[in-house]
Formats: sequence, structure tokens, C-alpha cells
Amino acid sequence: MSKLEKPAVTSTPVHELIRDRWSPRSFADKAVSRADVTSILEAARWTASCNNAQPWRFVVATREDGPAWEAALAGFNVRNQRWAKLAPVLIFACARKTFEANGAPNGHAWYDLGAAVAQLTLQCLALGLVVHQAAGIERDVARQGLAIPEEFDIVVGLAIGYQGDPDALPEDLPGREREPRARKPLGEIAYSGKFGASY
Amino acid sequence: MSKLEKPAVTSTPVHELIRDRWSPRSFADKAVSRADVTSILEAARWTASCNNAQPWRFVVATREDGPAWEAALAGFNVRNQRWAKLAPVLIFACARKTFEANGAPNGHAWYDLGAAVAQLTLQCLALGLVVHQAAGIERDVARQGLAIPEEFDIVVGLAIGYQGDPDALPEDLPGREREPRARKPLGEIAYSGKFGASY
Repeated sequence: MSKLEKPAVTSTPVHELIRDRWSPRSFADKAVSRADVTSILEAARWTASCNNAQPWRFVVATREDGPAWEAALAGFNVRNQRWAKLAPVLIFACARKTFEANGAPNGHAWYDLGAAVAQLTLQCLALGLVVHQAAGIERDVARQGLAIPEEFDIVVGLAIGYQGDPDALPEDLPGREREPRARKPLGEIAYSGKFGASY
Repeated sequence: MSKLEKPAVTSTPVHELIRDRWSPRSFADKAVSRADVTSILEAARWTASCNNAQPWRFVVATREDGPAWEAALAGFNVRNQRWAKLAPVLIFACARKTFEANGAPNGHAWYDLGAAVAQLTLQCLALGLVVHQAAGIERDVARQGLAIPEEFDIVVGLAIGYQGDPDALPEDLPGREREPRARKPLGEIAYSGKFGASY
């Protein structure tokens, strides 16, 4: 087995962590060290946020945790459990709905959480780990199983580990794992001076 | 003048791009090359997103653009204009409210945009640039000045450039520029197996 790579095709070079990041569903049967899990959480912790409110919270379960990892796995929807169950580390990423300082709604909580998970993800790459995110989650199941308070939105589930063999995935997934990555052309997401104006 | 540095203090090492990122308000009077602006947009472009919907849009204005840059600057609130006006590159980051595929609301649009701006920001670091984000923006002004359609939320303004001299900032800002960075302890944002359980 060789590790499947999908470097981003860009018009100008980007940093290798960004270039090489993609979202494999295949995970090797290999545990992640405590120090590495701490490192990826530290990477999230130091993200910028609106008013430095740090709305992100991470409930982490490793396979060695047994029932807690099973509870986290149950928080993924059935389709996503097919691959999430291969991951040695599962994390539910949550966003505090309000500012702690004054109780006002924090409109940027999900935005800030997205940035924190991006930093977590790039730190994974730096450590040789990969991440697959799932929006397809069972929020009620995760909330109950992981005791997540109503004050926090449950935003995504993360499956984390060392990249594995695509052919160990079930059903249609080995084929999907090999699909090329695709993005809109740069000119459809970036504009010069005015929305819609050619960059 | 020496460049003010504020490396994150972490319990385990994190990648230098993440460690060294902070949000200066001081910008040097030095233009950013077109290739570097393209590179940071490419970094955003290749972010992961829910259903690969890529809800992010970036309206970019450089100081050389004249009226467009002035229009972008006017999109920051007055307090934030004090430092944004020093930045050679201003970007408004927008999120498409719905999925293009079916018109359904995209609940993860802001989350995905946050991730894209995080990748953009770390690419800035890789190129020797710094970013300061502002949620304190005049959305109506930005929408009109940059012709942003209602279908897109205007989420943040970004000021980008080479780091400058803190003492060139007005009023209270040199002091704020020198304040240490602070974050909640890791144990307040990360839990093991259950929300609130000690990591």
C-alpha cells in the first residue's frame, strides 16, 4: 500500500501543509500519542477569535477510552460511521452560542470554530496525521452521549489518525477516496475591488 | 524598530506558522506583490468545506486600486479604520447563505469561511505577511461600496501587509499592540470523553 496523495494544484505555490491537506476516510490501525493530541488542541487553542472569546470546545475520545469513543462514534450518522469507526481519535467540535462576558449572542462563534479546526487540521498534517470532518452527525445522540450542554452548538465531528489503505474502506468508499480533489476556479471566489469583478 | 513577536506558549510544540501567528495592527508602508496575494487566495481556495460547497468569496482591494481600496476601508468601523488604513491589502470575506446545488440554507457557511480565512492567514505567515481581522465592520457600507449581493453574508474585514512599527499607531494602539497574548487554559476548551471532563 502506498499513501494516496492529492496535492492542490495552484497558480502560485502555497505552503506544503496547505497544499497537501485533503480529507481521507482511510485510517491506519495505529494509535495517536497523547502528546500529538495535545499538540493539535494547542494549535486550535491559539487561533484568533472575535473579542478573543475563544468559543471553541473539543470533546476528545480515543479508541483506548472504550465507551467514550463508542459514544463519540455514535454521534456520527450511519453513513459516516462506516469510515469514522476506523479512526483512533474522534473529536466533537462545539461552539458557545453567547459571549461569556455579557451573554450576548456570538454571531462569529461558528466562524471562529472553523478557524480553530483549520489550525488543528494543519497541525495534524505537521504531525503526519490526517483529518476528515463530518457535518453529517446525530446532534442529539452526540449531545446526550458526550454530555454537551445546550449552551454549545455541536458543529462537526472530526475523525483523526494516520492515513490508511483506501481498499480497507467498505462499499463505494475506495473509489471515492481516489477521486481527484476539485475546487472552483480562483476567479469564481476572489474578486478585485468589487464583487464579481475579475481578479 | 524591531519586529514585535509573540510566540504562543504551549504545553507541546506546535508548527511555527501557528506558534508565531498573532494579529498586529501595525503595517509597514510596503506593497504586497500580486503573486503573494494570489497565493493567499489559493490557500483559502483549497480549504475543506461542507459538501465541498466552497461558500467563501473574497473581495480584494490593494492600495494601488485607489477608489476600491478607499471603499473597502470605509467598510471598517471608525475605530478599526485607525489601523486598517495602514494596510496595503484589504479584503472583505463573505459567505454564501445557501447551497448553490439546491438553494437550501448552508448552516456551515460561516464555519467553512472561518477555516478558509485561517488557511489564508497561515499562508500569509509563510510569506512574511500578517493579518488583522475585524468583526467591527459597517456591513451596509461594505455591501454598497463593494457591490456585495444580498445572497452573501459579509462576515469580516481583513487587513493584510508586512508588520510595521507599533509606535506608528495612533492613540492607545501602541500599548495594545504590546499586550501579551492570552488564551484560556487548555483544560477549559478540551475535554476527555465527556464535556467538562478533565483532558
